[in-house]
Amino acid sequence: MNKMRLFTPGPTSVPEEVLLEMAKPVFHHRTQQYKDLFAKVNELLKYTYQTKNPVLTISGSGTAAAEMAMINTIPAGGSVLFLSNGKFAERWVKIGERNKWNATVLKAEYGQAVPVQQVADALKAKHFDAVVLVHSETSACTVTDLAAIGALTRNTDTVLISDGITAVGALPVKTDEWGVDIVITGSQKALMLPPGLAFLSVSEKAQKKAAMVKQPNLYLDLMSYLKSYNDNDVPWTPAVTLVRGLFVALTQIQAEGIENVWKRTSLYASATRAAAVALGLGVFSQSPSDSVTGINYPAGFTDKEFRGALRKQLNMNVAAGQGTMEGKMFRISHMGYVDQVDTLGVIHGVEIILKQQGYKFEFGAGVAAAHKVLAGA
Amino acid sequence: MNKMRLFTPGPTSVPEEVLLEMAKPVFHHRTQQYKDLFAKVNELLKYTYQTKNPVLTISGSGTAAAEMAMINTIPAGGSVLFLSNGKFAERWVKIGERNKWNATVLKAEYGQAVPVQQVADALKAKHFDAVVLVHSETSACTVTDLAAIGALTRNTDTVLISDGITAVGALPVKTDEWGVDIVITGSQKALMLPPGLAFLSVSEKAQKKAAMVKQPNLYLDLMSYLKSYNDNDVPWTPAVTLVRGLFVALTQIQAEGIENVWKRTSLYASATRAAAVALGLGVFSQSPSDSVTGINYPAGFTDKEFRGALRKQLNMNVAAGQGTMEGKMFRISHMGYVDQVDTLGVIHGVEIILKQQGYKFEFGAGVAAAHKVLAGA
Repeated sequence: MNKMRLFTPGPTSVPEEVLLEMAKPVFHHRTQQYKDLFAKVNELLKYTYQTKNPVLTISGSGTAAAEMAMINTIPAGGSVLFLSNGKFAERWVKIGERNKWNATVLKAEYGQAVPVQQVADALKAKHFDAVVLVHSETSACTVTDLAAIGALTRNTDTVLISDGITAVGALPVKTDEWGVDIVITGSQKALMLPPGLAFLSVSEKAQKKAAMVKQPNLYLDLMSYLKSYNDNDVPWTPAVTLVRGLFVALTQIQAEGIENVWKRTSLYASATRAAAVALGLGVFSQSPSDSVTGINYPAGFTDKEFRGALRKQLNMNVAAGQGTMEGKMFRISHMGYVDQVDTLGVIHGVEIILKQQGYKFEFGAGVAAAHKVLAGA
Repeated sequence: MNKMRLFTPGPTSVPEEVLLEMAKPVFHHRTQQYKDLFAKVNELLKYTYQTKNPVLTISGSGTAAAEMAMINTIPAGGSVLFLSNGKFAERWVKIGERNKWNATVLKAEYGQAVPVQQVADALKAKHFDAVVLVHSETSACTVTDLAAIGALTRNTDTVLISDGITAVGALPVKTDEWGVDIVITGSQKALMLPPGLAFLSVSEKAQKKAAMVKQPNLYLDLMSYLKSYNDNDVPWTPAVTLVRGLFVALTQIQAEGIENVWKRTSLYASATRAAAVALGLGVFSQSPSDSVTGINYPAGFTDKEFRGALRKQLNMNVAAGQGTMEGKMFRISHMGYVDQVDTLGVIHGVEIILKQQGYKFEFGAGVAAAHKVLAGA
């Protein structure tokens, strides 16, 4: 028996209590029952986001939420500063192209963050309607210093949009304290749910911008969502079963304490990085995110064979590198419903397959290193 | 004990087998396992839609699918003929306004269909890029003759877009035979699922149009979905648990036979209409849809009190009239996971509350009429 374990950076494992909640009979969303549920969910989202502002819930993927954030706060012909260091940042740049905004793209190599000073210089040189960045770039397992960039935009009229899809509920995200105007996330990452919901917090500054920007999209119209939100309602039919599951998952996060969730995620990441170093592989990123670790492959390894063996023999699912990073590394998620035994377990599995496929190393070195970090030794 | 019964025209009841399928552990969507599942789902969708063309699955509400259909096939400045006879048609007209298309709106009173001859005349008088109509207008419980309008557009370059949200899986929808280019539906209606997914079939004509139309939206970009579809894939993270449930629900529809589902739905509608007449109330629509029946309130009745009593005392959920129809009628759905006992049961409940709230009628007349129709007498 090898239990199925998901170490992919979304979807992640869903707690049994959440799965069972979602299996309950469906009820109607235009009822006081739904409003009462949604009111509680909205308070829990504020806690998870560390914000006093509305956190909107939409039915769709993180891409929908990112597009919604941009099209509602950036006017026609507006200027946008994109920070790009991975596949997801590149997708947001594509949204800029489709909308023909006046875009400036600050690029960093995969595995590096755009230096904060570069952002400061760009903001001094020109006025931008918005800055769009990826807090935790899942594809390159890389974190950007959101707090430092928030300090640059907070006393300006520039809207700071952060893709927090693999950050919220995993890394410290202090939305209000850091002055981040819009933080996006998705249900299937650190929030411990299946895919299908996405979220965005909206600061007063972003709300004011959205009230001025005219855009044609109805489904992703931020003002429609805001108007309904104030009545604990949604403009379009919501994915009710997922919202029920969300209530249970966020209640678990609140019970654990968001700071404890951050610490725990960070501990697993540290243990995994220690193991990668002990195995002589090293981590892919020079600015590693605590939500997902990219471990470099030994020379000559084939991604498909390595991950295939891990899945077939041990029922462990880790992720491939994306795009040009494919074959260079594999990725292990630390988000959500994962504990120290799971974390130790995936290193155990990785060692077994590394050895089997001919990599020369001190067998057990990774497990020993992870074990020590996890035990706080 | 009164079991909870949903007679609302979305959400509708979800079969227990579907609920349990969705409670299974989440798996990753970028896998062969997902492609295999999606390939089967796509075949079942074609069967349910009676089409050989792709039926795209998106994570979102029916509104997202309707917007996707329009923005991808109607060029900037394009001309659209809208048929409007209810709240949902009015929402699609609003999408036209937001996109500043050249719109012609043929209006009918709530409860009536726009006459086919009016559509024919409009199509003769002017060229239209698209015709947008609501096959089953849920708000006014009214059906439009989709086959007749399909005959008008099929040999032209006009794209026919049908909101089939409460039609697909309930009323006969012969997508290819009738020449309908895009048929939209949502998961929480006759497809027996919770809300969160929406669908649209795309004819070759619509595919060609979409290939020519440039539009900025990324999340609802039809060409991205089509490209992925050919590989049994999706461009953005799908709501995996709902897709699993969809497979089970569509398998049930296939096992019953789509024609049998249509017949059964029609039988429940006939029984409900017969009961409404026998009770001296009558049905709201002059062109009643078989997916949802609007029953007129007796003079002096208050919607909130009537539906509230039905819910509190008997745990039966029927829907209010929408907009200006509020207070004039209540609505009973016949879609999806509902049987003849449920149908007889809601008439039984309606009679109890009608009597309790002072309406004078022959107690039992509605149940007797429904019983006869359901028994095929």
